[in-house]
Amino acid sequence: MKDKINVIAFDADDTLWVNEPYFQETEKQFCALLENYAPHHTLSQELFRIEMKNLPLYGYGIKSFMLSMIEAVYDISGGTADMKLIPEIIRLGQEMLQHPIELLDGVREVLEALKGRYRLVVATKGDLLDQERKLKKSGLLDYFHHIEIMSDKKADDYRKLLKRLDCTPDEFLMMGNSLKADVIPVLELNGYAAHIPYHTMWAHEHYEGNLDHPRFLQLNTITDILNHVDHETRN
Amino acid sequence: MKDKINVIAFDADDTLWVNEPYFQETEKQFCALLENYAPHHTLSQELFRIEMKNLPLYGYGIKSFMLSMIEAVYDISGGTADMKLIPEIIRLGQEMLQHPIELLDGVREVLEALKGRYRLVVATKGDLLDQERKLKKSGLLDYFHHIEIMSDKKADDYRKLLKRLDCTPDEFLMMGNSLKADVIPVLELNGYAAHIPYHTMWAHEHYEGNLDHPRFLQLNTITDILNHVDHETRN
Repeated sequence: MKDKINVIAFDADDTLWVNEPYFQETEKQFCALLENYAPHHTLSQELFRIEMKNLPLYGYGIKSFMLSMIEAVYDISGGTADMKLIPEIIRLGQEMLQHPIELLDGVREVLEALKGRYRLVVATKGDLLDQERKLKKSGLLDYFHHIEIMSDKKADDYRKLLKRLDCTPDEFLMMGNSLKADVIPVLELNGYAAHIPYHTMWAHEHYEGNLDHPRFLQLNTITDILNHVDHETRN
Repeated sequence: MKDKINVIAFDADDTLWVNEPYFQETEKQFCALLENYAPHHTLSQELFRIEMKNLPLYGYGIKSFMLSMIEAVYDISGGTADMKLIPEIIRLGQEMLQHPIELLDGVREVLEALKGRYRLVVATKGDLLDQERKLKKSGLLDYFHHIEIMSDKKADDYRKLLKRLDCTPDEFLMMGNSLKADVIPVLELNGYAAHIPYHTMWAHEHYEGNLDHPRFLQLNTITDILNHVDHETRN
């Protein structure tokens, strides 16, 4: 593997920085606003159902989440909710869009060790403007040769990315916290993929199954990758 | 100019296909829903104010428009509007997202005449998933070497695009209906830009001023570009 890899691509949300906990925190506040109508787990379930229904139309990201929360307020209350909940939901979403970036442990150290040795890339789903803004705020932009914000992360989407990077699957390593989005589609193309678990995950990204593939690396933390690829060593 | 141009980039909305009239039609329906609260022009003005306030946070596109319409329902009615307006607004937005694509006159003919002679590119603002979906529906994807969906179209955004395309401003021609987004920033980089007027335009894109630049082309229709660049001629 060491000899071949040319591009190392990183997922962003919950791989480079904290993301899902903010969604969960917002969902908790959403449930608190509606707790007169149903218990929290019922509200969460209903919100998730509406999110999944809207996903093909809206795609990923905070604005989609806001629109689904607003739709859920109406549905859950049967149209009887107080209109004042609407600006509350909008405020919750706008706060998410303005949240500071909290880098995960080891991220900067790993990028520092790999830079110059590989073309480093970000490959993330989500909203275009929001992901660009988070990258700027992260202070990590200078490490990356290329930023790809994708509407989905299926094998075909990675195929397009590889074409754009002029890179074969043999030369490509993807790292991320989602087996479903960051690992399996890349292995399908016979690229390399490393899984870095994160303590919490959106139900939509859950994957049940065993992975046994010669190009799959299960890591414990992002810094473990330095045991598998070339890198600068510190003095 | 003929000898130099290597990349011809097209704006999408209201350059390749109809867009703004659908926003205006939706806005008309939005105003009809709220006509008990204020006259149409006041409602439109208030919606525009909210859109402009949210633009830096939300970016362009239909989901942003939906969120601003929802916020406007609350603001305009002082929170007294019937909650039933919320699913109405969501329905209007979802209909926009599913609208069929209506190509503008001459578009396919021009792409057909230019293909193979230039690298053809789409450079458009808007929502990532929505623009990708419209491109697929348009049936035009095969003409394009590269699709760039941009969070904004300032000179700096075009600079990044040129870098990505490995192309100098001397080799780049941008075509579109917005002087502000498609022409002026490209001329700023000393690239070539052609303006194709469209009969209607979002107030945010309005530009007042005279353009006098050696690399600016004012066209009447998209097919006029064939008088300025190499192309296949029909038998």
